[in-house]
Amino acid sequence: MGMKLYDLAGAEEDRRFSPYCWRITLALKHKGLDFESVPWRFTEKNSIAFAGTDKVPVLVDGEVSIHDSPAIAAYLEKAYPDRPSLFGGASAQALSRFYVDWTDLVLQPALFRMIVADIPALLAPIDADYFRRSREARVGATLEEFCADREAKLAALHQLLAPLRRTLTHQPFLSGEQPAWADYTVFGAFQWSRCVSPIRLIEDETDPVHRWRDAMFGLYDGLAGKAKGFPA
Amino acid sequence: MGMKLYDLAGAEEDRRFSPYCWRITLALKHKGLDFESVPWRFTEKNSIAFAGTDKVPVLVDGEVSIHDSPAIAAYLEKAYPDRPSLFGGASAQALSRFYVDWTDLVLQPALFRMIVADIPALLAPIDADYFRRSREARVGATLEEFCADREAKLAALHQLLAPLRRTLTHQPFLSGEQPAWADYTVFGAFQWSRCVSPIRLIEDETDPVHRWRDAMFGLYDGLAGKAKGFPA
Repeated sequence: MGMKLYDLAGAEEDRRFSPYCWRITLALKHKGLDFESVPWRFTEKNSIAFAGTDKVPVLVDGEVSIHDSPAIAAYLEKAYPDRPSLFGGASAQALSRFYVDWTDLVLQPALFRMIVADIPALLAPIDADYFRRSREARVGATLEEFCADREAKLAALHQLLAPLRRTLTHQPFLSGEQPAWADYTVFGAFQWSRCVSPIRLIEDETDPVHRWRDAMFGLYDGLAGKAKGFPA
Repeated sequence: MGMKLYDLAGAEEDRRFSPYCWRITLALKHKGLDFESVPWRFTEKNSIAFAGTDKVPVLVDGEVSIHDSPAIAAYLEKAYPDRPSLFGGASAQALSRFYVDWTDLVLQPALFRMIVADIPALLAPIDADYFRRSREARVGATLEEFCADREAKLAALHQLLAPLRRTLTHQPFLSGEQPAWADYTVFGAFQWSRCVSPIRLIEDETDPVHRWRDAMFGLYDGLAGKAKGFPA
């Protein structure tokens, strides 16, 4: 039996926009593992309750069900040691953790403040209503108010990308000559933005982050680049 | 012939406070390599000109002289492959780059704005004068003005440490179960602060960053913890 990945979808079944799910989609491709991608919507909490969570990604591999993207990555590495390594060794796996935490706590919040207001229009009505209510309660403002002043936020984003930009002047990928888990993790945030928002995050094609992002769009037959979204 | 490390010193020869030099001191200890630490002052540009730089650290190993801390680390790993690995493999070495760039572009600038005014008093008069003039020209203010409002900056620092803090809830060191280059790189910034400034950066002993920093102070017979400075 093949694996199943529960993957966040919009009103259109092929709009897959979760940054966490993109990490795992690319990790599965990296490992060369076949899987069925199951579209899942915000309000379908019941359909993944069996995995002990109410959030995707959820990976089902035979008898095993697992959630939380770093835990899924660690599972894949351990369960499929003969496939290409997702990390490049134990030290690299440990060093990858900071990329997850930087993405979750620095990069994604900076993007969230620019793009979250674009999301409800892409969801089915029941999901749009849930999404708006839950997120507006969290941020204490309407999503449109929360996303105001995008120009200043874009400038702040470019500042925040400085260390990433410098790293990518030294090497083609965060993981070196080839992409791996750290790249998938950070890239998931950019792909999330591209899938839900028309905002152009990095227009300068000579920016090393732009070049890296383009390379990531092209992986695995252009999987991420061809996915439904807006022009990057 | 043993190696020589040119290491930034204050008026007191044993006040060694460069974050970049601390990276290399700890890297040499990690590799178990003997070296002579040569005190060097800001105005002694001529004494390291042979290495094609005007900044420390400079490492001299026989016929080889090398500068720039990541380049020195890469050299040590390549020249001494039978010693404990400084990175933990090629992927880990690549993944370490972002730690250098995050430290250089995010962590150290945040500390610089709090501690730079404390430095001139610790330098020999000729160095203090050079340091003050060059840094005040760079920042466009007196160092004291530049370092004003430390409380707000300390709060901003704690915010900026969020991803580091979360990573260190998952594992004892950035590099996993044992410290390595990424840890030395980030720690160098904290040690820099401790060596020059009475400011207490992290008072909460339950903060994972505090615990990690204490562990780093204790490495190699407490080398960094015993070094001349202020209480952390």
